[in-house]
Amino acid sequence: MGRGDRSTKTKSRIGVVDTTFARIDMGGIAIDELKKIATGINIHRKTVPGIKDIPVAAKKLLGEENCDIVIALGMPGRADIDKMCAHEASIGIILAQLMTNKHIIEVFVHEDEAKDDKELTWLAERRTREHVHNVYNMLFKPEKLLKNAGKGLREGFPDVGPIK
Amino acid sequence: MGRGDRSTKTKSRIGVVDTTFARIDMGGIAIDELKKIATGINIHRKTVPGIKDIPVAAKKLLGEENCDIVIALGMPGRADIDKMCAHEASIGIILAQLMTNKHIIEVFVHEDEAKDDKELTWLAERRTREHVHNVYNMLFKPEKLLKNAGKGLREGFPDVGPIK
Amino acid sequence: MGRGDRSTKTKSRIGVVDTTFARIDMGGIAIDELKKIATGINIHRKTVPGIKDIPVAAKKLLGEENCDIVIALGMPGRADIDKMCAHEASIGIILAQLMTNKHIIEVFVHEDEAKDDKELTWLAERRTREHVHNVYNMLFKPEKLLKNAGKGLREGFPDVGPIK
Amino acid sequence: MGRGDRSTKTKSRIGVVDTTFARIDMGGIAIDELKKIATGINIHRKTVPGIKDIPVAAKKLLGEENCDIVIALGMPGRADIDKMCAHEASIGIILAQLMTNKHIIEVFVHEDEAKDDKELTWLAERRTREHVHNVYNMLFKPEKLLKNAGKGLREGFPDVGPIK
Amino acid sequence: MGRGDRSTKTKSRIGVVDTTFARIDMGGIAIDELKKIATGINIHRKTVPGIKDIPVAAKKLLGEENCDIVIALGMPGRADIDKMCAHEASIGIILAQLMTNKHIIEVFVHEDEAKDDKELTWLAERRTREHVHNVYNMLFKPEKLLKNAGKGLREGFPDVGPIK
Repeated sequence: MGRGDRSTKTKSRIGVVDTTFARIDMGGIAIDELKKIATGINIHRKTVPGIKDIPVAAKKLLGEENCDIVIALGMPGRADIDKMCAHEASIGIILAQLMTNKHIIEVFVHEDEAKDDKELTWLAERRTREHVHNVYNMLFKPEKLLKNAGKGLREGFPDVGPIK
Repeated sequence: MGRGDRSTKTKSRIGVVDTTFARIDMGGIAIDELKKIATGINIHRKTVPGIKDIPVAAKKLLGEENCDIVIALGMPGRADIDKMCAHEASIGIILAQLMTNKHIIEVFVHEDEAKDDKELTWLAERRTREHVHNVYNMLFKPEKLLKNAGKGLREGFPDVGPIK
Repeated sequence: MGRGDRSTKTKSRIGVVDTTFARIDMGGIAIDELKKIATGINIHRKTVPGIKDIPVAAKKLLGEENCDIVIALGMPGRADIDKMCAHEASIGIILAQLMTNKHIIEVFVHEDEAKDDKELTWLAERRTREHVHNVYNMLFKPEKLLKNAGKGLREGFPDVGPIK
Repeated sequence: MGRGDRSTKTKSRIGVVDTTFARIDMGGIAIDELKKIATGINIHRKTVPGIKDIPVAAKKLLGEENCDIVIALGMPGRADIDKMCAHEASIGIILAQLMTNKHIIEVFVHEDEAKDDKELTWLAERRTREHVHNVYNMLFKPEKLLKNAGKGLREGFPDVGPIK
Repeated sequence: MGRGDRSTKTKSRIGVVDTTFARIDMGGIAIDELKKIATGINIHRKTVPGIKDIPVAAKKLLGEENCDIVIALGMPGRADIDKMCAHEASIGIILAQLMTNKHIIEVFVHEDEAKDDKELTWLAERRTREHVHNVYNMLFKPEKLLKNAGKGLREGFPDVGPIK
């Protein structure tokens, strides 16, 4: 409580939300990557049943647990209703950000983006790891994002790259 | 009001909202399952006409009746307009969560998910009971959800399971 | 202002919003039914041009005029744009409820639900009157709604009834 | 600032928002009609690039410039993306009303409602002028709207009229 | 901090948000154009991964960095999911404006608006530069927008012009 304590550098807090619905442990992958690239951070993880439970879980991490940023991981299924759920979750994730003035990086991997389970596994892992770098850069290295403005970056599948 | 009273463990409050539109007493099933698995809880039930009445009913349970979590049960019909109502209700349910910082577990069973009334009955009951376990775990055993991250769990129909 | 005045039972206030766009005087029907079944209520009516004007009109009734509940009556036309307007109005009606913590019972009768004007008239009147009973029960007899949980009730067309 | 000034009847303020995207000066038409039918009003006009800029412009007129009501004029194009923009703008206009507890009368004329430029001009002018009367009645003559409840009124094209 | 400092004319602050997803450096183009036409402004730029990260980034520029207006630049891809992301981002951008009472000028260039990369480059640059003029006029020359009300202006492709 003294002046000394207050001047101690507080560690950044990064929230991770994922679901039991997803077929790959995206939260585990995100944490693995976070630990590889960042030191001096605290990770707050929460697992919820489905993607529509993500918005408030993320908002609680940002508000009640005072995280600086959250990575929100989900894997919508192939059915029309799954697409609608993803849309509703995305609206909620945007609202949660606007209500807290903090970023939530949404990492959704749609099952029908991949031709089979093998590619889906590859895609989910790669997209998750690449977005962890986005989270890291938003928090600690915004100049890296600035340098990549308009570069046609993609997370998961290969970058399409800038025009010309 | 004394110190003793304040230290008394307050019972958790679980809200249950369902509709007269649904063709199965989903609220009754939820309460039956809650009583099987939880002790020391208070259940607050509210029945509304249709799913679009659910968001504010759930918010009132979370706010005015101070519930810790709500389970919201609905059974959208087969028509396009029913799908739209479900979408609107879902948006409202997400908003109600963001405004209260508490979870509402949405359990919607679409009539056209089942091939006949028998399967619909089975599905509604099973999905409701399984989501009651989610509610319970979110409140009392979050580590169980964490353990199941990425396990491809489904409520109602069989789990698809994790990849590999 | 004295103790006596304050203990006087305040009458419940019920708001009614309808439109000049509708082809049937749904507000008039609602008020007729309200007067048949309820005594000791005050009715606050507001007519707006179209359904997209309903959300704020209802919110003003709940807030500024301190109504306890509102019944919102509209008749969307057959065109795609009319469907979209109804969707937007519904989102607004859900939001108005979440912002006031009070219920708004939406009664929309789509022109294309009926095969001709005669059926449309019948449907609009019957759905309106049945929803007035919902309004009444939500305010004064919530136990009646509870008793009908999962009973497959419909307003307007016949109830589909519970399964089995 | 004295008591006398405060008791001076304050003029009603009516906001007008339109766009540079529209192909007809809808704001000019609205003001022309307002001046024909109302005296003792102040008109606050704002022109923005497109319809998605309307919600906040209208909200600023209602909040910062203390308008009592706003008429919001737009002309969405024929493309799918234009329809989506109109939908997004409409959601925003409904939200702006709910946040201010004041009405915004939306007057959108879709280019594809008319068969040619001549009809489009006629439609935009007529719908605008008729909605100006709605604005006027909402502010000064709500009993006129009440009298027209359920009369099947349309703005622009002819009224369809009440059933029977 | 003295009286003199406070009376110093504060420079207008203009926020620029763009993405690493876009294939053209739209933020760089916007800043280039801003510097050509405006003096005495401060530019605050932020680059985020994708368009769904724009709403909160823009809101932070308007709130925390006290920008007067923001230009939000994005390039949605050709897939259905990209269209949905753009829709979600647009809803968020409208909300961010309503929450701050400030304008965000959205400049989205859809990849499928152009027939090839060359046209896309041309379109993105031209639309961006033209919208920078809108930003400038909204801030400093609202009378120019008023003069162009109903003129059928388009950003990027040629103006369609007013009717007749």
